[in-house]
Order: sequence, then C-alpha cells, then structure tokens
Amino acid sequence: MRIGIVTSGGDAPGMNALLYHLYQKLSNNNELIFYQNGFVGLIENKTKEINFDLLSNSFNNGGSLIGTSRVNINWFRNEIKTYRFEVDLLVLLGGGGSLRYLGREVSEYVPVIGVPCTIDNDVPDTEYTLGFDSVCNFYLQTINYMLRTGIALKNRVFLLETLGGNTGFLAQKVGSAINSKIILTPEEQFNLFEVADILKMNIKEKGFAIGVVSEGVSIENNIEELEKQCENKIRLCKPGHIARGCNASFYDIEISNRLSDYLVKCIESNTFGVYLTVVNNILSSENI
Amino acid sequence: MRIGIVTSGGDAPGMNALLYHLYQKLSNNNELIFYQNGFVGLIENKTKEINFDLLSNSFNNGGSLIGTSRVNINWFRNEIKTYRFEVDLLVLLGGGGSLRYLGREVSEYVPVIGVPCTIDNDVPDTEYTLGFDSVCNFYLQTINYMLRTGIALKNRVFLLETLGGNTGFLAQKVGSAINSKIILTPEEQFNLFEVADILKMNIKEKGFAIGVVSEGVSIENNIEELEKQCENKIRLCKPGHIARGCNASFYDIEISNRLSDYLVKCIESNTFGVYLTVVNNILSSENI
Amino acid sequence: MRIGIVTSGGDAPGMNALLYHLYQKLSNNNELIFYQNGFVGLIENKTKEINFDLLSNSFNNGGSLIGTSRVNINWFRNEIKTYRFEVDLLVLLGGGGSLRYLGREVSEYVPVIGVPCTIDNDVPDTEYTLGFDSVCNFYLQTINYMLRTGIALKNRVFLLETLGGNTGFLAQKVGSAINSKIILTPEEQFNLFEVADILKMNIKEKGFAIGVVSEGVSIENNIEELEKQCENKIRLCKPGHIARGCNASFYDIEISNRLSDYLVKCIESNTFGVYLTVVNNILSSENI
Amino acid sequence: MRIGIVTSGGDAPGMNALLYHLYQKLSNNNELIFYQNGFVGLIENKTKEINFDLLSNSFNNGGSLIGTSRVNINWFRNEIKTYRFEVDLLVLLGGGGSLRYLGREVSEYVPVIGVPCTIDNDVPDTEYTLGFDSVCNFYLQTINYMLRTGIALKNRVFLLETLGGNTGFLAQKVGSAINSKIILTPEEQFNLFEVADILKMNIKEKGFAIGVVSEGVSIENNIEELEKQCENKIRLCKPGHIARGCNASFYDIEISNRLSDYLVKCIESNTFGVYLTVVNNILSSENI
Repeated sequence: MRIGIVTSGGDAPGMNALLYHLYQKLSNNNELIFYQNGFVGLIENKTKEINFDLLSNSFNNGGSLIGTSRVNINWFRNEIKTYRFEVDLLVLLGGGGSLRYLGREVSEYVPVIGVPCTIDNDVPDTEYTLGFDSVCNFYLQTINYMLRTGIALKNRVFLLETLGGNTGFLAQKVGSAINSKIILTPEEQFNLFEVADILKMNIKEKGFAIGVVSEGVSIENNIEELEKQCENKIRLCKPGHIARGCNASFYDIEISNRLSDYLVKCIESNTFGVYLTVVNNILSSENI
Repeated sequence: MRIGIVTSGGDAPGMNALLYHLYQKLSNNNELIFYQNGFVGLIENKTKEINFDLLSNSFNNGGSLIGTSRVNINWFRNEIKTYRFEVDLLVLLGGGGSLRYLGREVSEYVPVIGVPCTIDNDVPDTEYTLGFDSVCNFYLQTINYMLRTGIALKNRVFLLETLGGNTGFLAQKVGSAINSKIILTPEEQFNLFEVADILKMNIKEKGFAIGVVSEGVSIENNIEELEKQCENKIRLCKPGHIARGCNASFYDIEISNRLSDYLVKCIESNTFGVYLTVVNNILSSENI
Repeated sequence: MRIGIVTSGGDAPGMNALLYHLYQKLSNNNELIFYQNGFVGLIENKTKEINFDLLSNSFNNGGSLIGTSRVNINWFRNEIKTYRFEVDLLVLLGGGGSLRYLGREVSEYVPVIGVPCTIDNDVPDTEYTLGFDSVCNFYLQTINYMLRTGIALKNRVFLLETLGGNTGFLAQKVGSAINSKIILTPEEQFNLFEVADILKMNIKEKGFAIGVVSEGVSIENNIEELEKQCENKIRLCKPGHIARGCNASFYDIEISNRLSDYLVKCIESNTFGVYLTVVNNILSSENI
Repeated sequence: MRIGIVTSGGDAPGMNALLYHLYQKLSNNNELIFYQNGFVGLIENKTKEINFDLLSNSFNNGGSLIGTSRVNINWFRNEIKTYRFEVDLLVLLGGGGSLRYLGREVSEYVPVIGVPCTIDNDVPDTEYTLGFDSVCNFYLQTINYMLRTGIALKNRVFLLETLGGNTGFLAQKVGSAINSKIILTPEEQFNLFEVADILKMNIKEKGFAIGVVSEGVSIENNIEELEKQCENKIRLCKPGHIARGCNASFYDIEISNRLSDYLVKCIESNTFGVYLTVVNNILSSENI
C-alpha cells in the first residue's frame, strides 16, 4: 500500500513521536511518502526523505520533522480538483481546522485517516489532542520558576500568558492545576477591578500572586490599568511560541503509540474518512 | 482543628506539591503539625517548621520537605499503644504498606485520611498513585537519550532498569509507551534465548535495541549470558534511586491539587479512616 | 564567630547552592544568622530558620530560600546609622548595586564580604557573576524550541527578548552562541530598516529567522513597523521573569563551590571590606 | 571546495550543534559531504543526506545525526591505502583516539582539520573537548535528585558512577563541584576502609552521603564489602550510556560556534593537518 503522510496547521509536540511510531509499524509492508510542509508540499508533490535514524534522534522533540503549513481553504479547494493522488491512503496529522476543513475536502478524493494534533485541545468529539499535555508540562515549569522568584523577591504579580488562540483550554488547565485564583480565558467575561482585588489579596496573604491568562484575552491592553488597580508591580511573562516547540511529555509519547496502533487497525479494517478520538481514555474514530 | 501531616515510606515526586496545596487550603482555619521523618518523628513528637515560602521554592521538587521513613510494623504497634495523639486528624501520605499497615493501625487511635503516594503505582483499589507519571517522564527522558546515542553508534543493546521493587508496573508502562519489544517484569516469566533472539532481530532491523527491565527481575545476573546469546554488546543503564527524586510532572501537580480538594471535602463530611482513590479519573475514598 | 548572611537585590540562580556550600563549610564552627528578605529583614532583625535539609532539597533551584529585597539607598543610610549589628561578619550576596552602594555603606559598621550574584553579569572588576550561565542555559532551551517550531512552520521571525535591564550582556552572550545575525542591545544603536533586511534575508535562506533582543531596547514599540518592513510575521517571545527563577547550571554550582572556598579563606585571613571576583577563571577579591 | 565531514568514536553532546554551525558557515560556498557512521561509511563511500531543517530540529540533541563508529586501526590502515579521497578537505569530529590515530593516518592522504569531541575531556594539548560541560550538567541533575531523596529518607549512601572510561576527569569535575568528600578515580588509589569511614561520618553529620565514582574504578566489585564497612545501605546509581546522549549545554553550544568560526579561519589560511585546541579559553590548533 502507498501511504502518504502529511502534517498540517500548527506543529504540536508529539508529532515526531507519532511519525516515529507510524514509521516503525507501517514501513515494512507499505511504501511511505512524507509530504513536505503540509498540503503545500502535497500539492507540489514535494516529499521529504525521512528515515528511522532521524526520527530516533528527534523522538520527543517538538516541531514536525517533515514540516507543516497553514493553507487557505479556497486555494486548496481549487488546487485539489486537478491534483492527482498517487497514494492509496493519506494520513493527516493536524488540528481542528486541518481535520475538518482540509481533511473533509481531501477525503472526497482519497481515503483519509486523521489524527488530532494540536496544543489547543479544541477538536470536537475528542477529549484529547496530541501535544496538550506536553505544553501543560512546559507551562508548569515556567510557573515553578515564577514561584521561586516570586517568593524570593516579594510584592509582585506574575501573569503567565499561555497560547491557545481564541480558546482558553490551556490557560484553564494550567491555572486549575496550581489552583490559581486568577484564570482569564476568552470564554469568560471578567471584571478588571475584581481581578485587581483578588491579586491584591493574594499578595497580602502570600507575598506575591500568580495568574494565568490566555492570549485570546489580550491582557496587554489592560496591564497599565490593572497595575494601577492592584497597587503592585505586574510582570507579564509571554513565552509565546517557545511553548509550542517544547519536548513531548510521557503522556504524549504513550498516546502517540496508542494512536499509531489504532490507526493500523483502521487500515486493516478499511475504516477511512475518519479521525481518531479519545473519549474516557478509550480510542475510537469519528467521521471526518 | 489540629491536623497532623506525615509522609511515610519511600518518597515520591508530587509529595511536596501536595503539601503545598494542603498548606494553602488548610492552614488558615486549622493548626497544621508537620511530623519530621515519618512515623519515627511522630512517635518522638518531632515536628518540622514548614511555611509557604519553603513549599513554594520546592513546589515540584521530588523528595519530601518534611522527611519520611520506613518503620517496622511491630515496633510501631508497640509504640503507638502508649503514644498520646495531640491532633484531631492525621493526614498520611504514603504507599501501599504505609496506608494499609501503619494507617490501619493508627486509625484505631486517631481519625486518619490517607493519600496514596508511591512511584510503584501498586496500591489496591486505586488506579493511580501520586508520583507515577513523574517517574515515567523521567524514564522517557533517559530513553530519549538512549535513542540518540543508540542510533549514532550502532550495534548495541541498551537495557533500562527501572525501579518498582517486586512489581513491574513502571517497566510495563514505560516499555509500552515506546513500544519496546523487550519488557521484563517480575510478574511474567521470560526465556533468555527468546529475549536474545528479539534483541538480535531489533539490531538487525534498526541498528540497535532498547529493552525495559524492572529491578525485580535482577537482570544483572544474566547479562553475561544474554550478551553471549545476542552477540552484541549490552549496556545496562541503572539510574536507580536518581529516578525517585525527579521533578513532579504536570499530571502529578494537577492530581495533587485535586486530591487536596477531595481531602478537604472528606474533612468537611467527617469521612475518616479512609484513603483517597482514583478510578476512571474520578476521585473517591476507600476504607483504610 | 557570628556570621550574618543576607541576599540583596534581584534573586539569581545559584544563590541557594552558595547558601548550601556556605552552610556546609561554616556552620560547624560558627553561628550563622540568615536575615530574611534582604536588608529589610536585617534592619528589622528578622531572621529565617534554614537548615541543611531545606538547602539540600532546593540545592539547584533558582530564587533565594532566605528571601531578598531591593531597598532605597537613602532609607538604608538612615536606618543603618542607628542599627546595632549583632554579628562579627556580614556575608552579602547580591548584584552591582547591592555590593557597591549598600555593601560600601554597611562596611563602615561591620566587616563585610560580598559575592557578586546577578544574572546581568554587570559587576565591575569581575568577569563573572553567579547566575549568568544558568540563565544563558535557560535561553538556549527557549531558542532550541524556537528552532524546532521555526523550521516546522516556515516564514516567521522569532524574537527572543532577554532580561538584563539596561545592559545587553545576556542578549549578546546568548545571541553570539547561536550565531544570530540580529542581536539588539541598549549599548548599540541599530537601524530598523537594516534589521528588517537581515531578517528578510534570513527567512529567504533558511525559511525563518531568530533574533535576540535585550529588554533594554524596548523592541515592543517597534514591532509593528518592523513587521511591515520585513514582510513576515514576527513572534515576540518574552519569557520575562520566568528566566530568573530557572535551575542553576553545572558551571554555577561549580563556581558557587569555589566562591564558598575562597570566602572561607578570606575569613581566615581577615580579608574584609571586599567582594569576590573572577578574572581569567582565577578567584580574587576587590575592595567593596 | 569539496569538504567531507565525519564523526568518529563515541558520540558527544554538541556534535549536532557543531554540524549545524559548520553547515551554516560552509554550505553556501562549498560542497559538503557527510559520511555516514564514521570511517566505516567513508571507506564504503556511504554518505548521509543532511539539511538545515534536520540539523535545526536536533540542534542541541545529543548523539550524531550522521552516525559515528569505532574502527580498528589496523583495518583502517589497510583500507585507507587503496581508498581514493574525493574531497579536498576532511573535517574530523572525534575524541583522542580518533584524532591522533585515525586522524594522523588519514592526514597522509588528504588535508584534515580535527575538532576534539568527547565527554571524557582527555585529548592532549587542549583543556576542553566538546561535550564535557553537557555531561557535567547531566550529572548535576542526577545529584540534585539524589539530594532530594537522600534528605527525605535518611541513612543511605548514594554513589553516582560516571562514564569516563579509564580516566577520572568527569568524576573529578562533578565531585568537586558539589564538594563531595568521596571522589574515586582510576588515577588515584583509595582505601576501602577510609572510604567507609568518611561515608559513615557523612551520614552521621548530614543524614546521608553522596560519592562520585568513575566507571574505571569498577566499584561494583567492592560494594558488598563497602556496605558492610560503612554500616549503611549503599545505593549505586549507574545511569551509564544515558549520560552520553543528553542535551548540549549552553557552554557547549557557545564553544561549538567558536570552534566552527576558528575552523573556517583554518580553511582560509590553509592550516591543515591540525586539530583545534582550547587553552586559557583561547582557540588555537595543534599538529595532529
């Protein structure tokens, strides 16, 4: 069988581990074609030479060894019409947009199996997307560093701005785990005065305060006002895209292995036009 | 309320985070007494001064800031008879032995709430014990390093010996996540010749081989023979007790927060003589 | 001998390791008094209970277990006049300001030995200040993550904003190590159009670009213009104060040990009113 | 110019970073040929396709992306006689053996520039070899973990066995940095009874003891006796080859950049038949 593999949209930690596991389980009996830089490379038939050695060295590295890209859906719709697939199956690693828009489109031309990979954890019908736990681990480390310096040199507010686009799943998850009293997400309205009050109280009780804020909230515009209200210095920490390229965590390595096993089963049972899902820790698939 | 807190048995990553969360949630309305070095300190009424600053600096550090110990059950039974508890509740962080033997004993004298904390993940009636995911993350990193050097300088077998005492849960979990063909645990018999054959085949296919072996298997005694059989150099990597002191992972931080919330609920509802459990990701409690 | 120990100014990784080494080498034959939260605590005679166990758990953690603070020099001058020192020697861990202003002041009242500790590496007469290498290691990791995601999803500029206040040593050191074509520091003027040209060329050649920018440059004010000029998306990554609380590197652990040895020698030879220096990798001391 | 690049002997962290820097600085004006798996691949004219993307993803990963090997000097002498070099220069990354035996041999047939890369730091005429600081950082982390668990659960001796072959540089460097009272190397005789006495005293004073032992000492054979003598449990931690594949530290990244700059200068000045050296932090070269 000729199997094309493509990573699409933002890269997510664990993508390389999933490529590693797929390579191990599929390369003996199939011809694997790795498209370069997502659907851009697919349309141009640009492929990437990848082998077991390279995948091993980058096993739990963030990023995608074969490259990824964001493409315009209209451009893609147009290109795909005249594109001639030379594979029997396309394996698509990507986030919600890639799976549901590009994946659905492409599945009209070739059998497709998608795997939800995004640090945002915002793909419908699955409770988990590859990369989420890794980035949570990255943020935990940053909070850990904040705690140390916060307690050493008192009377400061630290705000950690997380990624997540216009979703707040990352900020919510990270903030709850450390029991932060301030978690600001695009999904929920907040009142700047109440936020300031809570931060002030935190500083009074513990000597410092930590809040977790989703990038979707654009807190930067309100920092000056907030600083005035809470009467203490605010340090906004925006690691930004650094978070995205972090190492894959154990959980993401484990789930990448389980996802690759399930994907092999889908191939064996001719289950195509789907993407894999995790619900109650059980793997299944959903129509794309 | 006067609440005594004790860590018992082997230390586990996440213990300090749990102490941090308990401190935050209980210290305002209760008097907290941290016993030093486990039940040894309790019997001697030795306590440890701990405060929020110290807990913050060590938030996700392995170990136990208040110290722990292993005690002889008969010695303990004898001592406890004449010991006079000066707390209204004892919170006990420890593994299976500490919870079920010492915890049961002590619960005849004072209300007790236990929290399963052990890297071995071998406490009955709970699917998870605090520390397990952290140590899996530690081992993942070691395997990652093995992969890099294994692929660089070929024709070697790497065996990672994990902790776990006479249980194989750690080795099993770590080995499966990387889809290792060789996972040796005390629970399952193995044939040295078959092991050698698989390792040889691995080397032939990929240039090197990685196996995961529980310490309970005492592979060291068979290394020479195994090396002869598989006709390649074997490198046994035994990080040993280094693994135990590693950083707490995000999952362990998150679960430590949830466990502390649930423990507060148990106090509020006078649920004593229990230890907390995690089943299907839902927290509950079990009679000690 | 009664020896007071105080950390002053911004905390730096390696401070806890230095406290650990000093504790080991001095606590047997001297009485150690750890002042809490820098000179604020000293003036108020607030001390912190610290012992070997706590220092061991936080050995290479960032922050300062005993707390630090920034104080106003005029306030301090006033307070110190009526303050009565109850120690025979004050060991002062801090940056340039703490050593030269506060240290000089205090040395008129009590024997002082200072140790340069700051991530900024900007103390006169010494080539190295404790904490610098640790933070460089932290930034290396962030660049590493940028490289992975930069190469995966092309056509973006990543700018890493480092700490350093109004000095550019950190940005310069980190930028040179990765051979970055764009290193912006407060010490050197730059032309936004030239910067944009270089970034554009980088993207053309490698698919992405990485620049290192000191916080003293306040690049944020120019991002919009720079983005327009270089015709590619710019991702500004500002880990901010996260960097400060990072783990101590091996070099900082090693130098903290050597500094503690040299400090003991200074005590033995009654060399006071000095701070320790590192020149050509040789330790010495300089009048405060 | 056609430049061949080969990594030989044991892999060392920083090799990939050096390849990255060489690629960046040489690939525009030269043809680079990466030989696969060291001199074995060279003799067989097997090359490895490497590009900037792959090097970026593995920038500070341990291992060698192009593979390395250990070869028999007699076999090599024989093969090289009839081998026809198709490059104008061979860049050789390796340890003492590779540089001085294989490098000297090969330099009779083709211009050679060597770069000392080994975690053992045992190459003559240079104070530093690429990879040494990285592995020291790795061991620091393991000691850090030991400290936490050592102080939590008392009365144990932890011995860290380092790599280093029959040299003790690694053990010596790591042991001194933490001021360990027990550092055992192949270069110095030791008396088991004295070792036991020091460990016992350490446990008495601090509750536990940490020693650093080079693998060249083969301590395993004496553990039983040592345990008896020091009357406490000894935990031998042998991370073994895990250490070799660790991440490159900032220092190794920085020095890899400086080494690549110096190597370019050597090419420009036709300085061949040499290997690069670091003395007093100044780069130079030495006849191979």
